Amino acid sequence: MAMVCLSDFEAYAKKYLPKIAWDYFAAGADDCTTRDENILAYKRIRFRPRMLRDVSIMDIRTKILGSEISFPVGIAPTGFHQLAWPDGEKSTARAARAMSTCYIASTYSTCTLEEISAAAPGGLRWFQLYIHRNRATSQQLVRQAEALGFRGLVLTADLPYTGKRRDDVRNGFRLPPHMKLKNLEGAFEGDDCSEYGLPPNSLDPSVTWNDIYWLRSLTRLPIIIKGILTREDAELAVRHGVQGIIVSNHGGRQLDEGPATIDALVEVVEAVRGRVEVYVDGGIRKGSDVLKALALGAKCVFIGRPALWGLAYKGEEGLQDVLRILQDEFRLSMALAGCANVSEIGPHLVQLSKL
Amino acid sequence: MAMVCLSDFEAYAKKYLPKIAWDYFAAGADDCTTRDENILAYKRIRFRPRMLRDVSIMDIRTKILGSEISFPVGIAPTGFHQLAWPDGEKSTARAARAMSTCYIASTYSTCTLEEISAAAPGGLRWFQLYIHRNRATSQQLVRQAEALGFRGLVLTADLPYTGKRRDDVRNGFRLPPHMKLKNLEGAFEGDDCSEYGLPPNSLDPSVTWNDIYWLRSLTRLPIIIKGILTREDAELAVRHGVQGIIVSNHGGRQLDEGPATIDALVEVVEAVRGRVEVYVDGGIRKGSDVLKALALGAKCVFIGRPALWGLAYKGEEGLQDVLRILQDEFRLSMALAGCANVSEIGPHLVQLSKL
Amino acid sequence: MAMVCLSDFEAYAKKYLPKIAWDYFAAGADDCTTRDENILAYKRIRFRPRMLRDVSIMDIRTKILGSEISFPVGIAPTGFHQLAWPDGEKSTARAARAMSTCYIASTYSTCTLEEISAAAPGGLRWFQLYIHRNRATSQQLVRQAEALGFRGLVLTADLPYTGKRRDDVRNGFRLPPHMKLKNLEGAFEGDDCSEYGLPPNSLDPSVTWNDIYWLRSLTRLPIIIKGILTREDAELAVRHGVQGIIVSNHGGRQLDEGPATIDALVEVVEAVRGRVEVYVDGGIRKGSDVLKALALGAKCVFIGRPALWGLAYKGEEGLQDVLRILQDEFRLSMALAGCANVSEIGPHLVQLSKL
Amino acid sequence: MAMVCLSDFEAYAKKYLPKIAWDYFAAGADDCTTRDENILAYKRIRFRPRMLRDVSIMDIRTKILGSEISFPVGIAPTGFHQLAWPDGEKSTARAARAMSTCYIASTYSTCTLEEISAAAPGGLRWFQLYIHRNRATSQQLVRQAEALGFRGLVLTADLPYTGKRRDDVRNGFRLPPHMKLKNLEGAFEGDDCSEYGLPPNSLDPSVTWNDIYWLRSLTRLPIIIKGILTREDAELAVRHGVQGIIVSNHGGRQLDEGPATIDALVEVVEAVRGRVEVYVDGGIRKGSDVLKALALGAKCVFIGRPALWGLAYKGEEGLQDVLRILQDEFRLSMALAGCANVSEIGPHLVQLSKL
Repeated sequence: MAMVCLSDFEAYAKKYLPKIAWDYFAAGADDCTTRDENILAYKRIRFRPRMLRDVSIMDIRTKILGSEISFPVGIAPTGFHQLAWPDGEKSTARAARAMSTCYIASTYSTCTLEEISAAAPGGLRWFQLYIHRNRATSQQLVRQAEALGFRGLVLTADLPYTGKRRDDVRNGFRLPPHMKLKNLEGAFEGDDCSEYGLPPNSLDPSVTWNDIYWLRSLTRLPIIIKGILTREDAELAVRHGVQGIIVSNHGGRQLDEGPATIDALVEVVEAVRGRVEVYVDGGIRKGSDVLKALALGAKCVFIGRPALWGLAYKGEEGLQDVLRILQDEFRLSMALAGCANVSEIGPHLVQLSKL
Repeated sequence: MAMVCLSDFEAYAKKYLPKIAWDYFAAGADDCTTRDENILAYKRIRFRPRMLRDVSIMDIRTKILGSEISFPVGIAPTGFHQLAWPDGEKSTARAARAMSTCYIASTYSTCTLEEISAAAPGGLRWFQLYIHRNRATSQQLVRQAEALGFRGLVLTADLPYTGKRRDDVRNGFRLPPHMKLKNLEGAFEGDDCSEYGLPPNSLDPSVTWNDIYWLRSLTRLPIIIKGILTREDAELAVRHGVQGIIVSNHGGRQLDEGPATIDALVEVVEAVRGRVEVYVDGGIRKGSDVLKALALGAKCVFIGRPALWGLAYKGEEGLQDVLRILQDEFRLSMALAGCANVSEIGPHLVQLSKL
Repeated sequence: MAMVCLSDFEAYAKKYLPKIAWDYFAAGADDCTTRDENILAYKRIRFRPRMLRDVSIMDIRTKILGSEISFPVGIAPTGFHQLAWPDGEKSTARAARAMSTCYIASTYSTCTLEEISAAAPGGLRWFQLYIHRNRATSQQLVRQAEALGFRGLVLTADLPYTGKRRDDVRNGFRLPPHMKLKNLEGAFEGDDCSEYGLPPNSLDPSVTWNDIYWLRSLTRLPIIIKGILTREDAELAVRHGVQGIIVSNHGGRQLDEGPATIDALVEVVEAVRGRVEVYVDGGIRKGSDVLKALALGAKCVFIGRPALWGLAYKGEEGLQDVLRILQDEFRLSMALAGCANVSEIGPHLVQLSKL
Repeated sequence: MAMVCLSDFEAYAKKYLPKIAWDYFAAGADDCTTRDENILAYKRIRFRPRMLRDVSIMDIRTKILGSEISFPVGIAPTGFHQLAWPDGEKSTARAARAMSTCYIASTYSTCTLEEISAAAPGGLRWFQLYIHRNRATSQQLVRQAEALGFRGLVLTADLPYTGKRRDDVRNGFRLPPHMKLKNLEGAFEGDDCSEYGLPPNSLDPSVTWNDIYWLRSLTRLPIIIKGILTREDAELAVRHGVQGIIVSNHGGRQLDEGPATIDALVEVVEAVRGRVEVYVDGGIRKGSDVLKALALGAKCVFIGRPALWGLAYKGEEGLQDVLRILQDEFRLSMALAGCANVSEIGPHLVQLSKL
């Protein structure tokens, strides 16, 4: 089977992963409307490609928070990579480094942050944080991440409670016994860890904007907030001093029937007015999706499920394949739209109103 | 089979109910366009969820006409509950009371109002009235309902004649011989009761707004009018002194190709300008639908067919399951949208224009 | 099989008619887009039904050009009724008279105008005219129609050439040898009658608005022009002195991808400003479609294919069934929308913009 | 099998061509969205047909760059005609001449320009040019075309690199060994000709608007630029002195999710304001599509895949069949819309906004 585009990896993963793992990765909240809208919304955007521009020398590099990456696609935080590949997040870290891009490691990794760091020394990595009711746990993780050389702290804002993913409920999803939430080991010793490997309601639903200041007091890392979908919250994020915003709806796994992320990006970018960097995740399936996101103001996009499909295909090597395909497609779509480097990408390239 | 969401109950009911009963409950008028639009219209509404708001303590209670209910979902009036479960409306009354919500008992119940009252003393109930050509019958029912402690009188305004439900015509639908329209027994003795257990054309198609005054003369109960779909009629309802309006198209069973109720709600709420309470029924299938209805100005929603599916599943217990799922989903969607109590719900939470 | 709605008759006709006849009646031009749009466009219109209006006494009669009909649905001109039922147009004439409505007999009838008149003396009938290159033929038909008591002359304006109906081309459609275009017998003696029973290109494509004056010189009958789809042509029709306009796209059989007739009706009614009566055909499948057409300004609608399905079902009796169903549905939808007679129907009843 | 409309030829070609050849001709870039949109966009445009205009004498001829053609449909440049029919471009040239229309021969022909010219002396032909990194090759081709009597030079602007056509990648598409890019023979001797018969990246991606001046210096032929999709580029084209613009997205084979060509035509025509001739290709499947394109300002359309289907059916004869069907359909749709010659076609004939 030739792996030509990302949906080839999706088909592979669906065929070879255990159903319970596939369902967990694929799950969306409720009717999965938002999960699917993330993809459909890209298809509603039309390019306005420009011709006869010199695209003989293509430069697709960019910088996020000052660090250069080989192209504007990073790896979004997702949990439980060992469900996709035995080496789990270690493979992810290696692939990201090999492709010179950024990997956001999840609190819910099945490898420790040390293991992840050791697997790919020098790689550009950010750490994604869930704030638990047990704040000491969160505090320790932040400090550990900084100490290990992670270069950004990503606070997930859209999960005060876990969304209702029907398939997980039907499957009675739990981590297999030989996998652990390695970064939280010991923190919930003896508790009933029935919700995604944690005690039910272990996350802190009382987190508010003021907790940005608490995080700021813990670390010198730049803080990126993930899960913003409105201009109002974008403004609040800027006012509370974050360095970056990831427009995200958690892959459609939290509140169903919220906006597609590429639609929300437009209003967030408008509200932010360049004061902080804005990224987006959700629904990226082709290099031209990346081009659309950048045209609409994203500095970089992050991929979630496609990275897991790559892992499921061939671990580190499979994820590199996924990234390389996106990279080639992105470069080609830039060239065909008439842009030789990312600074030439702008809103003139797209037309939003077309159904 | 795990009962995870309301469509699981729908699938169960479709499988286990006699076809003629399923068809009767499922029926819509003509092409069933409005029946289906009631559901589709909710899907066209997008949330604008807010992040990082303290949602650790959730309060989902509300009040309707001064009575507190545990969450803003009541039971809409539907007929013939014995078609779904042997105990019929008695089970419905018990489930509503157990879940601390309001049950609107139909004129076309297969239990008497006394039986319904006795089954769940102290429960919050309203009585739904059809006005028959034989006005004495209607008058007696109103007085009986008031005497039995029903706390509201719901006048159905959209059924001067019965809509054309093709499947009922094909099936030659009639109540099975062992079921009776208990509240109308004796009223039509000896007549040909071939239309839904009543003589054809027994309802009075000459009812007009002035009959609100007639009802007012019969009872001190608050009067709620059900079936309003336009701003003009909303204004008339307020002027004629009703206490509440249920935006309803009778589940799409009357005039096909009228508006979806959630669409009509917007114009009714705008016209009413807070002078009376506005409710909505039709198309509620998820907790987030309730949230959308409240964001658009409904004080509470009422469920019709889903209640019948619950009854068909396990009677009183099944209906409680349905209500509990809606309650959990509503609470979760509120939290994920950033609201800790119903007073925080408002139009800022939704975006209407998105297809 | 219960005949509950018009699509039941359609299914019957599709099953029992010879394929070549079914295909001929069902045919649309090219991709059949306009044929199907005629139906879909009705579904995009939403009612704004009004409640609590006295609808105990319903009066659904109307008048067209001064003649009363029992309800605002007549029979559009269609050809070759013997393909549907042995008695052909004689049955159509009888059914129309029995239901007290208007029948527009086609130039392309398989019975003579005398036979049609004799079959149902006193019935309200109009005669539909195609102008042939051989003008004497057309002139004679007009005079004969007037002499036989036809009360209107309908000039078809949209067929300078016959539209391309792919199935007819594939089937090599021709009238069976025992059927004749009875009204044209002798006119084309000896010619190659391979195009729908006539010599190819026998119609006159040079007809212009001035030919209205020629027709006027031939007859005192009111002239109705059929096939108008734009405001410009509606204005021209009024200026040339016609008494009525039928908004029609020939059932989608001529220029494909023109407007649906119910959409075109709006602009024609606006242009005409009440100076002449406006009718519409195409896509009427339910009583509520009639109500929509009247709400948008049509004085009456005409049905084409549904009449043929009725004939195919049981001749005169089947067509009466079709008309009676439409009548019952129209009366019910009027009542449910809050109208007791046709003068209460108006644009306030509908909302156009809803997709 | 009757060949009634263009999709009959498509079905034939799909059935009888080798899969790899069919896939190559049918291919679109990435998800094939733009390829399919080219067709769907025509369906969103509604005619506003006019009645009772004298259409007895139809004249469908037009002129492009001063040369008369029998109707406004030419043959777009496509490669590798021998994949469809053994005689390849020689058959295409003969059919175009027989039908008195224009054939744009591709750089990627499987016959030499001499062979093409000799096959149909006196035919109206333009030559389509790709500019190779090896400019001498391109220069020689331009001069040869002029010498051979080609009457226009079409510069393709949208292929700095080849689009990603997944099926071609999966199939490992290559020209069969017995076919050659005859016009480029010798130019890339000994190279690895693995990309569509050429060395990878043999085209020059540094071409800019200034190269129009270089082409101008090589030839006196009118220069037509192909692949323009925006008003900005249309303005640049006019300013750089081209004689014509072909609005094209390369049949959806280059940048996926750009605009449908008929949509882009509107903005290009508006920008050009009549200063040069504008043509369009992509998505033409019926005579009425041609009428729509002309109504929106195109002087002429060009067909790509349909020409190949005609060749695949019966070579020269099959392509004539395709052209004759389009011609008949175009003439009929003009007449049914009320136009007797192309000068009567204008924007009043169409309505764009209808979904």
